[in-house]
Amino acid sequence: MSKDTRRSGSWQKLENLAQNPYDLCSEDALRADGRIGSMICRSAGLKLMYSTQRVTEPVLDAFQEFADEHQLVDRFKGMKHGDVINRIVDWESEDRQVLHTSCRDLFSEYPAEPESARQARKEMDKLKSFLVQIDEGSLTGSSGKPFSTMINIGIGGSDLGPRSIYEALKVFCLPGREVKFIANVDPDDAAQVLSSIDLEQTLVNVVSKSGTTLETLTNEDIVKRAFVDEGLDPRQHFVAVTGIGSPMDNPAHYLRSFYMFDYIGGRYSATSMVGCVMLGFAVGFENLTEFLQGAHEMDRAAESTDVRENMPLLLAMLGIWNHNFLGYPSVAVLPYSQALHRFPAHLQQCDMESNGKSITTDGKAVQIKTGPVVWGEPGTNGQHAFYQLLHQGTEIVPVEFIGFQNCQYNRDIIVEKTTSQQKLMANLLAQAVALAAGRDHQNPNRRFEGNRPSSIIMGNKLDPVTMGRLLSLYEAKIVYQGFSWNINSFDQEGVQLGKVLAMRFLALMRGDKNDALQLESELLRALEK
Amino acid sequence: MSKDTRRSGSWQKLENLAQNPYDLCSEDALRADGRIGSMICRSAGLKLMYSTQRVTEPVLDAFQEFADEHQLVDRFKGMKHGDVINRIVDWESEDRQVLHTSCRDLFSEYPAEPESARQARKEMDKLKSFLVQIDEGSLTGSSGKPFSTMINIGIGGSDLGPRSIYEALKVFCLPGREVKFIANVDPDDAAQVLSSIDLEQTLVNVVSKSGTTLETLTNEDIVKRAFVDEGLDPRQHFVAVTGIGSPMDNPAHYLRSFYMFDYIGGRYSATSMVGCVMLGFAVGFENLTEFLQGAHEMDRAAESTDVRENMPLLLAMLGIWNHNFLGYPSVAVLPYSQALHRFPAHLQQCDMESNGKSITTDGKAVQIKTGPVVWGEPGTNGQHAFYQLLHQGTEIVPVEFIGFQNCQYNRDIIVEKTTSQQKLMANLLAQAVALAAGRDHQNPNRRFEGNRPSSIIMGNKLDPVTMGRLLSLYEAKIVYQGFSWNINSFDQEGVQLGKVLAMRFLALMRGDKNDALQLESELLRALEK
Repeated sequence: MSKDTRRSGSWQKLENLAQNPYDLCSEDALRADGRIGSMICRSAGLKLMYSTQRVTEPVLDAFQEFADEHQLVDRFKGMKHGDVINRIVDWESEDRQVLHTSCRDLFSEYPAEPESARQARKEMDKLKSFLVQIDEGSLTGSSGKPFSTMINIGIGGSDLGPRSIYEALKVFCLPGREVKFIANVDPDDAAQVLSSIDLEQTLVNVVSKSGTTLETLTNEDIVKRAFVDEGLDPRQHFVAVTGIGSPMDNPAHYLRSFYMFDYIGGRYSATSMVGCVMLGFAVGFENLTEFLQGAHEMDRAAESTDVRENMPLLLAMLGIWNHNFLGYPSVAVLPYSQALHRFPAHLQQCDMESNGKSITTDGKAVQIKTGPVVWGEPGTNGQHAFYQLLHQGTEIVPVEFIGFQNCQYNRDIIVEKTTSQQKLMANLLAQAVALAAGRDHQNPNRRFEGNRPSSIIMGNKLDPVTMGRLLSLYEAKIVYQGFSWNINSFDQEGVQLGKVLAMRFLALMRGDKNDALQLESELLRALEK
Repeated sequence: MSKDTRRSGSWQKLENLAQNPYDLCSEDALRADGRIGSMICRSAGLKLMYSTQRVTEPVLDAFQEFADEHQLVDRFKGMKHGDVINRIVDWESEDRQVLHTSCRDLFSEYPAEPESARQARKEMDKLKSFLVQIDEGSLTGSSGKPFSTMINIGIGGSDLGPRSIYEALKVFCLPGREVKFIANVDPDDAAQVLSSIDLEQTLVNVVSKSGTTLETLTNEDIVKRAFVDEGLDPRQHFVAVTGIGSPMDNPAHYLRSFYMFDYIGGRYSATSMVGCVMLGFAVGFENLTEFLQGAHEMDRAAESTDVRENMPLLLAMLGIWNHNFLGYPSVAVLPYSQALHRFPAHLQQCDMESNGKSITTDGKAVQIKTGPVVWGEPGTNGQHAFYQLLHQGTEIVPVEFIGFQNCQYNRDIIVEKTTSQQKLMANLLAQAVALAAGRDHQNPNRRFEGNRPSSIIMGNKLDPVTMGRLLSLYEAKIVYQGFSWNINSFDQEGVQLGKVLAMRFLALMRGDKNDALQLESELLRALEK
């Protein structure tokens, strides 16, 4: 399981194949051998089109060989069944199971890991009855008004996932419901949200697994004081999402505590109570259930042993091909859907925090590149912005386009005989072709080199079930890449040093005098001068 | 002026120096030779701290030599004085002056380029009297109500710059004023904005230089129909920002037309009417004037011939050092200010569209890397997200931190003896040190390699004048990098091919039958199936 990735036969086969990657610019390259029709993978209602990647059938065969050789699918199943994979062998580490998939393993009699699924179900039941009380109006704010707004206070995994999903599914909000988010320790973040809100009707959702996250506790304090200043009782407005027994697990301070568990990392927690309390309030319990159903469907599809049929695994291998074999250092996720405008930021976290690692699961220095930089903005907006570099720059950036057949609001118009939705899809396809095929031109400034790879992920419509599928697709892709690089995708030791050093600067700011803080003191003086 | 960059003596000197870049991890490396205090550049009220870059005095000397050898400052002055630098020698190209700096060259009797400054002043005067009429209430919507909301319809340069500046300066909005933005051809973008707005009090600002931008005209149509559906007269609600004589320069359709000119590219147009109409409406003419004043101050500072005193030039050279000599393919802009949350997206456009090029100004293929990938999100949020990769990943990403001494809302609290603003600054400094110095540890998973470069850009407070300085700082940085790479930073031929190909797909969608569209037809079938 922990053999050196580079020494495996399939890795070397891929290295050889990468000497001559498929030439997407040659005449009719995109249509040869029926590749457009055959290079489509369907999983759980989504479609992945990858004829514009620089791959051939032998490359796909080598993907399969690699997946088999490294038992990727078995390890994925092992994760779902509760294997302790969040660890570094022989070194102090978190030593935990990884069971975010259990949060949505609610739809069969025999979940993969029964105990965690039981806990997930219990929290869902608590949430359901809480939401019923709010909907009925039997639970109200301290002045007796019904709740219409939620402030979600959390950061990182307790912010980006929930926020991006809320933005994606805003159109499904129950009448009058809305959610605002506060994350940053920058005091202006809270101030801006508080300047536009009726606190009497506001429920505050404070999210921190440890119950000790500095930013979150500070923002909770700011918001709490705002309630007190208006003569409202915070106890009747605040709920907590936290670990059992954390400092925040305290009925004296919260209407309710919903639990998250050690076996779910923050960046994988969007389908746990971290995302569900917020989403259930916003779009209702039924839509929430559909969202979880969609995620569960993709979790199941991720177990196929055939790389051509397993979308998360295939997406992972295509990424590895571009990153490790063709040498491209970043990947752009470009949704042709305005509602997904924050989804790339969530993926940026989930991917880069998971796979931005330099140590194998055996505690050895990696000999290969691990996770790429992940970034992106919605199309068509990006076409009028950074796409210039994608087409004609000296940095080559593989792209993952995301699109949907139908829009959300059904408020479309026909201009020049096509709808806006048609224009959106035409642009998406055109970009994939332009990047791949390029164009020759007499004027050197109008030449396009081509051979710039992309995939297209298509869904029918961005609704709760599709959002669940899409989220799970990327979570599983990231896990599969971590398995392939033989790293631990579930810890985040790299965030610790900054925390320790921030404490040193804060000590100085509090006036502590300490000779060991000379560097900090010099920097602080320079900053303030 | 167009000599081969790589063959210049200073370039080769930099290549030699890059063999042994300064080691930021060695003991006391950050404090040696008083570098913290000496490696600070002050320009126009901002401060650039760069002791955590892998540079030494000899590297800075080589920067100076490079700047002198390539006459960078003279070329910058030439730009401001109206040189025709948007061109490719001997090839068909835009052949235009580049005069975005004239938009803010309003504060002296002798502007660098008088004619464009005169035009800028004229538009500002028109805007001023327009805003007075709105403020006084003598100009209202068709039902007689005063204007409180603006919808800004534009895309790319007509969206990202204005939007990011609006978000940054929201706290300065006149009472009751707000702006919403529609950019994407995705019909859900407009639908979402229209679902939350009182059209009677809404002014619509339609922004397109050519007056033919597909997305913008389509969205204008959608919004116009919404007005008509509510019995309101669009003619009394719509204004245009466009080129003189464009199809949109039509008093029959708009309350007013404000002009932008061929010598200003979209991504540099935030201080032209493209940004000013929106910003003047939102924050008032006085704040707008201060914003322009700040930009002008930095335009002046950018003319210093001493690289150590010229912040935009120094920032440009530090970027080139990291990108071309140390080999890092991307750069992260990380503002420790929630209000700047969309500023990285604007810089991503301005930088990548300007410098994502492969052809020199002589029409030859470049022999060096041009523009990097630019991306970023606010801190501290990012610390709980992608910073893991910045600290421990295999991709090294140089960072530009941005911070401010003071917050905007003055609504701060003390928790554990420090304010939130202090925590924000402590974190910013801690990250720069952690990236640079790293840390050894017995546990391999808790080691930090260090030597990861960053700069800190500091301002006093994010107000209109500071926002102007910051914007101009980055515009000039990008221009200086383009000069250094000897490319044309002002055209965008790379966006054309996608437009042409989109038309082919749209033809198919309209039902055109054309044997030349077999590839498109096959892809479209695959997408829809």
